[in-house]
Amino acid sequence: MTNSKLVKNAAGRMVPTEVNGKKQVPFQGVGKYRPEGKKYAPKIATCADYPDDGDKRVADLKDALVKSGLKDGMVISTHHHFRNGDLIANQIFDIAKELGVKDLVWVPSASFPCHQHLIQYLEDGTIHHIEGSMNGPLGRFTSRGNMKGTGILRSHGGRYQAIQDGDVVIDIAVIAAPTADAFGNATGDRGDAACGLLGFALGDSQYADKVVVVTDNIVPFPCIPWQIQGNYVDYVVEVEKVGIPEKIISGTTNITKSPDRLLLAEMSAQFCDEAGIIKDGFSFQAGAGGTALSIGIYFSEMLKERGMKARFARGGSNKYLVKMLEDGLTDFILDGQTFDLEGVRSMRENLNHVNTSPFTSYNYHGKGNFASMIDVVILGATEVDVNFNANVVTHSDGYLLHGIGGWQNCLASKCVILPIPLFRDRIPVIVDEVTTLCGPGELIDVIVTERGIAINPRRTDLIEKLKGSKLPIKTIEELKDEAEKICGKPEKAKFKDNVIAVIKWVDGTIIDSVFEVDEG
Amino acid sequence: MTNSKLVKNAAGRMVPTEVNGKKQVPFQGVGKYRPEGKKYAPKIATCADYPDDGDKRVADLKDALVKSGLKDGMVISTHHHFRNGDLIANQIFDIAKELGVKDLVWVPSASFPCHQHLIQYLEDGTIHHIEGSMNGPLGRFTSRGNMKGTGILRSHGGRYQAIQDGDVVIDIAVIAAPTADAFGNATGDRGDAACGLLGFALGDSQYADKVVVVTDNIVPFPCIPWQIQGNYVDYVVEVEKVGIPEKIISGTTNITKSPDRLLLAEMSAQFCDEAGIIKDGFSFQAGAGGTALSIGIYFSEMLKERGMKARFARGGSNKYLVKMLEDGLTDFILDGQTFDLEGVRSMRENLNHVNTSPFTSYNYHGKGNFASMIDVVILGATEVDVNFNANVVTHSDGYLLHGIGGWQNCLASKCVILPIPLFRDRIPVIVDEVTTLCGPGELIDVIVTERGIAINPRRTDLIEKLKGSKLPIKTIEELKDEAEKICGKPEKAKFKDNVIAVIKWVDGTIIDSVFEVDEG
Repeated sequence: MTNSKLVKNAAGRMVPTEVNGKKQVPFQGVGKYRPEGKKYAPKIATCADYPDDGDKRVADLKDALVKSGLKDGMVISTHHHFRNGDLIANQIFDIAKELGVKDLVWVPSASFPCHQHLIQYLEDGTIHHIEGSMNGPLGRFTSRGNMKGTGILRSHGGRYQAIQDGDVVIDIAVIAAPTADAFGNATGDRGDAACGLLGFALGDSQYADKVVVVTDNIVPFPCIPWQIQGNYVDYVVEVEKVGIPEKIISGTTNITKSPDRLLLAEMSAQFCDEAGIIKDGFSFQAGAGGTALSIGIYFSEMLKERGMKARFARGGSNKYLVKMLEDGLTDFILDGQTFDLEGVRSMRENLNHVNTSPFTSYNYHGKGNFASMIDVVILGATEVDVNFNANVVTHSDGYLLHGIGGWQNCLASKCVILPIPLFRDRIPVIVDEVTTLCGPGELIDVIVTERGIAINPRRTDLIEKLKGSKLPIKTIEELKDEAEKICGKPEKAKFKDNVIAVIKWVDGTIIDSVFEVDEG
Repeated sequence: MTNSKLVKNAAGRMVPTEVNGKKQVPFQGVGKYRPEGKKYAPKIATCADYPDDGDKRVADLKDALVKSGLKDGMVISTHHHFRNGDLIANQIFDIAKELGVKDLVWVPSASFPCHQHLIQYLEDGTIHHIEGSMNGPLGRFTSRGNMKGTGILRSHGGRYQAIQDGDVVIDIAVIAAPTADAFGNATGDRGDAACGLLGFALGDSQYADKVVVVTDNIVPFPCIPWQIQGNYVDYVVEVEKVGIPEKIISGTTNITKSPDRLLLAEMSAQFCDEAGIIKDGFSFQAGAGGTALSIGIYFSEMLKERGMKARFARGGSNKYLVKMLEDGLTDFILDGQTFDLEGVRSMRENLNHVNTSPFTSYNYHGKGNFASMIDVVILGATEVDVNFNANVVTHSDGYLLHGIGGWQNCLASKCVILPIPLFRDRIPVIVDEVTTLCGPGELIDVIVTERGIAINPRRTDLIEKLKGSKLPIKTIEELKDEAEKICGKPEKAKFKDNVIAVIKWVDGTIIDSVFEVDEG
């Protein structure tokens, strides 16, 4: 936790000026902060230090970490393409504990319940803090003020930006790979633990001082495709099992069967249609989660009926998107992470199912990225407020339970739709003010709930197009009132003064703080 | 030309300590120089400066150069994938001349006779000097002491190393592309001017301050594959014609019909076989040039007869390599530049015909590269001396007429074979001392001539294996003597004191100087 001074940022949120001893820039408004300086510059390597025969294998993960110079205070990164089937992140810190190394910073691209194992190391000082999502148990632990340092949550694009810009300097990146060669070329699209792609580890491979590839499927050089290039890799480790295949595919990747959610999906698709978004050559992104996935199905049906096709669909790919591609209903899938085995297969087999990365898709400190080109994105939220500000990391009770994922980055799309239930467990989702600000309301265009659709007043174009629609268009205040009539006004979460984590905006500034929950 | 002090480097060659006002490191021996410091760090960009819709098109090349801030002294880079069919490099300097810009540095990945057009700009001060190969007319011009600055020749890998390390800081990279989208994603594998890949421009795209993509074939986003990533690109320019397709395929890419050269090819292949190199899973690289290409055919036949296959063949791809791939005689082609239209087609169609770059294949300042893993490479040379040192850039008359290409990088291979005629135009190719040192003899293993094969005495293993061979194994002195018996002792070229160009080794140090030819 931090005791640094708090200042009010451009969104009116109180944020620290220093986090874990590093100066921070408060959020200055969308598109307002201008980065200065140069990208992070890794050390120049030389082939003289690497084996001529390209065989970088070492005895085991411990050997690789020791050879990488693992020591107190280092920054260790991992990726989350194995999701809840990850076996490697926990091992890294088991080894660190065994070696008596302290105060490590863990920079995962996301964490999952399987990483609950690491709470012991947050408690005993092996890990100082986490920069990355803290889902479930780790988030609850952090919300209780139990983490030594302050958590830093970034979007997928923000993570790339931070690594590229040197906001985070990774000492050792450990890249678990379903298939690799001894040189370190690695791919996620094949092998027992196939997870599709390895794009979340791209920045780690490019910028970390030492890069370790861990795999349970060594193939003779060259490993093709080389989603991770061996030219960035220092050591290769063979293990018995790199991930648990049956857990790699997560629960968020099934289409919803809930009639409520299907209704949200249908209303959202209908909205897009009436707004003129569904047309030949359009593009869309539906995030993980049953509702979002279901919307893709509605889009497919509309395109098929009308003899149209999308130019590209952004994934999280899944069997539904793959079917669209293979049915000729989209020219391309631009995929950031595969959500099921059909996605993995398709990435391996279809030239037009394309492996992307946070660099291409989301990095705000690039010369443009894909996110702003997408016609419509469908996203979730834990809370939305009457100014269309949204929260994806904390619940209304104040606990930090989710990561940001690509959510903030996707807000750059031409139309951002959040289909959300009006209440969850009798707690209204539309509130006066979000518990934690993750996305500024000016970027969020439409809220679709089962009892009505609210269009952001800024989007006069959409309001105009939907005039005369049979869809239940309402104001967001009307939606909030309806929820409160049913559930009552929700109680505000109670917090202590401690900042236990900060939320970065896509440009590296701090958009909000997460405070320690006052459990009373 | 430079007037800086000359010092003797570790190869005993006299080299300047400063070139074009920049301090230089003399060659210190193979694998001896250790780079210090960090990679070059480009400025951090922000999406705020780029169009949300991803459309980076500007009116024309002039507009792009002006928007890129073209001014005196800037460093401008181009690639040579269009070879002698390049139309863009000349236009850049026509525009610079028109704008009155002076003292530019041109950093092509190679130059061709079509760039003779630029001599006027070397004469009038628009271009200060060239860092890149100076083939034919540009080389002759330079050899006569007519270039304002000193030329710097680098291998393909050395060029990537120099860009990565900041030895060359590119202000504006202009990347001619057969196909691109308005965001700047670009590919060479399709379009009227298809040239296969764009790997030589990879470093330029990653590190240049401004990156301009020029194309005559705009496709809707996304251009797939994106061999060049639009996230690195500032401006996109549409032109009528980006290259002359019929000139993109160069003369070096036909198999030889000369009986002398076929003999060299057959002897080389036979040598490899007797040395035990041809086996299941082996790898080879045959450079451009008829002899080298022909050797590939012999390898194919051997593999086919024996029911074996290569693991990978490094290209320059061509119809012969493609046939090997499609006949199942090699698992992969790892291709650095396509030499004919079959190569282009195959790269587009075959997943196992893989697009590589100087970064993956040749960069000596990486964590290893592919070159050292290859079992055997077949290369050319203009001269070889009795210490197996070789020259590829000057002729025995002293004129600088060729670039280095990937030649120096390939010397890292496990076995380097140079099949060369014993004399050319009655001038012996094996000499007492090379006119210009491009490759240290310790890296060159075998010289194959029509009158005998010399094995480097360091390779006792090869000498042992070839004992009892029917191949005419001789010493290199014997070969030299035979040539001199026929042609007489060649006259040494006469030089003035001026260094008109320097030859970089793969690690950025200077291995030799090229002096102004004394035309008497």
